[in-house]
Amino acid sequence: MPVRALVWGENVHEHTNEIVRGVYPDGMHEAIATGLRGDPGILAETATLQEPEHGLTEARLAATDVLLWWGHAAHSQVADEVVERVANHVHQGMGLIVLHSGHFSKIFRRLMGTPCSLKWREAGERERLWVVNPNHPIVQGIGDRLDLPNEEMYGEPFAIPEPMETVFMSWFEGGEVFRSGATWQRGGGRIFYFRPGHETYPTYHNQQVRTVLRNAVKWAHNPAPRWKLVEEAPNVPVESAPEKLETKGPRLHHAGQAGYR
Amino acid sequence: MPVRALVWGENVHEHTNEIVRGVYPDGMHEAIATGLRGDPGILAETATLQEPEHGLTEARLAATDVLLWWGHAAHSQVADEVVERVANHVHQGMGLIVLHSGHFSKIFRRLMGTPCSLKWREAGERERLWVVNPNHPIVQGIGDRLDLPNEEMYGEPFAIPEPMETVFMSWFEGGEVFRSGATWQRGGGRIFYFRPGHETYPTYHNQQVRTVLRNAVKWAHNPAPRWKLVEEAPNVPVESAPEKLETKGPRLHHAGQAGYR
Amino acid sequence: MPVRALVWGENVHEHTNEIVRGVYPDGMHEAIATGLRGDPGILAETATLQEPEHGLTEARLAATDVLLWWGHAAHSQVADEVVERVANHVHQGMGLIVLHSGHFSKIFRRLMGTPCSLKWREAGERERLWVVNPNHPIVQGIGDRLDLPNEEMYGEPFAIPEPMETVFMSWFEGGEVFRSGATWQRGGGRIFYFRPGHETYPTYHNQQVRTVLRNAVKWAHNPAPRWKLVEEAPNVPVESAPEKLETKGPRLHHAGQAGYR
Amino acid sequence: MPVRALVWGENVHEHTNEIVRGVYPDGMHEAIATGLRGDPGILAETATLQEPEHGLTEARLAATDVLLWWGHAAHSQVADEVVERVANHVHQGMGLIVLHSGHFSKIFRRLMGTPCSLKWREAGERERLWVVNPNHPIVQGIGDRLDLPNEEMYGEPFAIPEPMETVFMSWFEGGEVFRSGATWQRGGGRIFYFRPGHETYPTYHNQQVRTVLRNAVKWAHNPAPRWKLVEEAPNVPVESAPEKLETKGPRLHHAGQAGYR
Repeated sequence: MPVRALVWGENVHEHTNEIVRGVYPDGMHEAIATGLRGDPGILAETATLQEPEHGLTEARLAATDVLLWWGHAAHSQVADEVVERVANHVHQGMGLIVLHSGHFSKIFRRLMGTPCSLKWREAGERERLWVVNPNHPIVQGIGDRLDLPNEEMYGEPFAIPEPMETVFMSWFEGGEVFRSGATWQRGGGRIFYFRPGHETYPTYHNQQVRTVLRNAVKWAHNPAPRWKLVEEAPNVPVESAPEKLETKGPRLHHAGQAGYR
Repeated sequence: MPVRALVWGENVHEHTNEIVRGVYPDGMHEAIATGLRGDPGILAETATLQEPEHGLTEARLAATDVLLWWGHAAHSQVADEVVERVANHVHQGMGLIVLHSGHFSKIFRRLMGTPCSLKWREAGERERLWVVNPNHPIVQGIGDRLDLPNEEMYGEPFAIPEPMETVFMSWFEGGEVFRSGATWQRGGGRIFYFRPGHETYPTYHNQQVRTVLRNAVKWAHNPAPRWKLVEEAPNVPVESAPEKLETKGPRLHHAGQAGYR
Repeated sequence: MPVRALVWGENVHEHTNEIVRGVYPDGMHEAIATGLRGDPGILAETATLQEPEHGLTEARLAATDVLLWWGHAAHSQVADEVVERVANHVHQGMGLIVLHSGHFSKIFRRLMGTPCSLKWREAGERERLWVVNPNHPIVQGIGDRLDLPNEEMYGEPFAIPEPMETVFMSWFEGGEVFRSGATWQRGGGRIFYFRPGHETYPTYHNQQVRTVLRNAVKWAHNPAPRWKLVEEAPNVPVESAPEKLETKGPRLHHAGQAGYR
Repeated sequence: MPVRALVWGENVHEHTNEIVRGVYPDGMHEAIATGLRGDPGILAETATLQEPEHGLTEARLAATDVLLWWGHAAHSQVADEVVERVANHVHQGMGLIVLHSGHFSKIFRRLMGTPCSLKWREAGERERLWVVNPNHPIVQGIGDRLDLPNEEMYGEPFAIPEPMETVFMSWFEGGEVFRSGATWQRGGGRIFYFRPGHETYPTYHNQQVRTVLRNAVKWAHNPAPRWKLVEEAPNVPVESAPEKLETKGPRLHHAGQAGYR
């Protein structure tokens, strides 16, 4: 059964900026999805900001194994309610791949718990992404590095929690460095951040970038059933304790009462 | 110069529940602060939910090295604006110690990015906290374990990000286990979660618990200046790049324009 | 193509101790391998201490995806040369599952870099392994816990590096706790330590234990080609630098000279 | 009481190579120690390969809070017995700072459990170390980066376990990147690896480098008493179990018998 990937695109600059429209005439989300479709094991669909509920209804997320997120100019237009819904699905086990300027998206900041800030410069400079662990599933087929002739620069400090795995590190022509591929586990969900993808450059047409994204979708896919109770704090009644137990001391709650939240 | 600790207490059950009032007649926050004051290197003050801005104004936080947080019944009454303010100070370098039912506080969930859910049972059972790293600063003076005759049970799974360090693990009489002492780094701030402290038991009068809290305050104190720019994403103009650089390719932003957020 | 698992058994107590022989008449390694064979996607073979090179020749390891290791009384009889060979294969990408008393094996200590010490008691007490992340591939099919009526106790502090993921935590009848399932990445290799398996109890006949081991083999399997150069420190000649470069300043090495080790 | 730092130098190239002698006429270890002595809170001494037991006797290590290690050409001449002794002290709580080519020292590889391999080039190129966490104790006083006009290049992949904290990342003129400052906890000991310091360049005379090393000594210092039992696996007799317990089932060991190692 193929992995069900959903590519979410902000879909703004493609309509307001000539350069971006020229590079991505069908939208960035379509270019990203097209790259994923190069793998018959991936079923890639798209959703955009402009759809009702941004195309991220409960039903849609429930049918998604891995969500990819590209946003930049309209982070603040994403409804908080949708952000919480996506976060809940990640906690339950849905994979999430956050792309480039998505570092400042509500969903990434929500899941990291940190500002996710960085330095930046838009000068079309060379970026070279070095592979840090050649055996990691995400870098298979890449070789030891990935060179991009023109990209926006992102520089450290990148205010993220220490990653579970550092997968790529970038060198920039102008002199900066960046952790450009990193993973985290949050609840049942695997998260991968991948740096490249400024909208004025044809990064998502690059074959190595497409290979990384296909690998990442497969890596982030958790085939286990969703962890439905990840938000719950169930009471274990005394009579259900694994060991025989008698209540001692004073209590705040009545038997069967829900806990505070 | 002493470490400036601020003990934040929800201060609700002390006024509405006879049992809690009996155990903590001056409030739980006062009992916690009294324990901290046993160390002349710590200057401990208190703040409560009921004060304007919950006692957590910008000025107060700016003068705080380490914030301790106890809440249970009134998590939802804490203003989102204050939560963001506290999160920002942690990112800038303020230490944070989250206590017991604070696992479900807005601030802990905000900084972890996960549900922070768990199992629970209020049966006054024995809890035994085992030291996982005997050389960790937080456990000095504790010996190999800390026994509490009556405590609420918290059981795994505890939906937190994998800790930087697991400091304590709890054994419960009824058969469960829990990661009851754990650390994280978020931006410039150090965070410690410490499990014990149900309001109907005299946990914060326990001398070993008080030793842990004093140690934790000193561990969480970051003497470096606050990381004021942790939320910022500064542009590095081409002419300020560390290496000589010429702009290539198309641009989205005008020189000097701020980035999107 | 099935995952090629190799179960290494010390194979000593099965021949010298009546109790162990009674529980594992064909050897513990055979019982473990039989459990793995319950999954048609796993091809399980065995090797023992007594074979030439302990059954772990270069060719054998090169044809192994995941190695499982059970040893206890004869850790010191394992040849250092074989330990280095196994370590090298793990660094290149072979998975390794270390079982129970294997915590003190040369190979586990070699890969952890720490003493891997712990407390212990042989009293046939109850052990309850709690699942810490219900969505982790290793715990699928287990439910929320795994109860063993009789096991040896291992207690914290367990002197290991902080795990990449804490998968199981044990509760013991006598009052201790232990991180009984934990993962690490070392070079290209994934490592899983799984605590239960004292030789006088029928632990490896337990169906839940067998499920964990099958899951763990699949989790530890890295399908990427081996990282052959993981031990190498290749020189990058100036003329092969990614960026045009001229040598400046004094040099220690002649061009083309190997580095020191 | 000052922190007792011991700077260990291989002390070979200073006597066999004119360039190195010119840069470090008193030996690299003396230059490093001189830098540390700029802080009155640090008491810095030196030891070298050529001394009996390489100057690292049990008594010397017992009186050392933090050991700094520089070696390159003579890693193989360091006695295995001394390496084990140093490793044991780190596990007990002694801090360790490994410098530059020390990445291939026996002690670093012993404690990491991985090959610690990397790419390299000796071309005197520019290195720029970027600060990843501006609030980390090790980077105080450095600003946002540290520029070195001439250094050897080290490139990823650096075959180390994922660090506890990534402190510095390097940009090299020739196009590579490297995790040039990273921390680990092993047993009671804190470990810091710091990349710069090729012997033909005056790196240890650089004021920013000296600041980093002073900060690192203070960070690595663990004031807790040494964890004497870190190598031990003590038996907990049934009658000493925290919970009342009766032995059940068959046993391998007699009461009071030591475990196998």
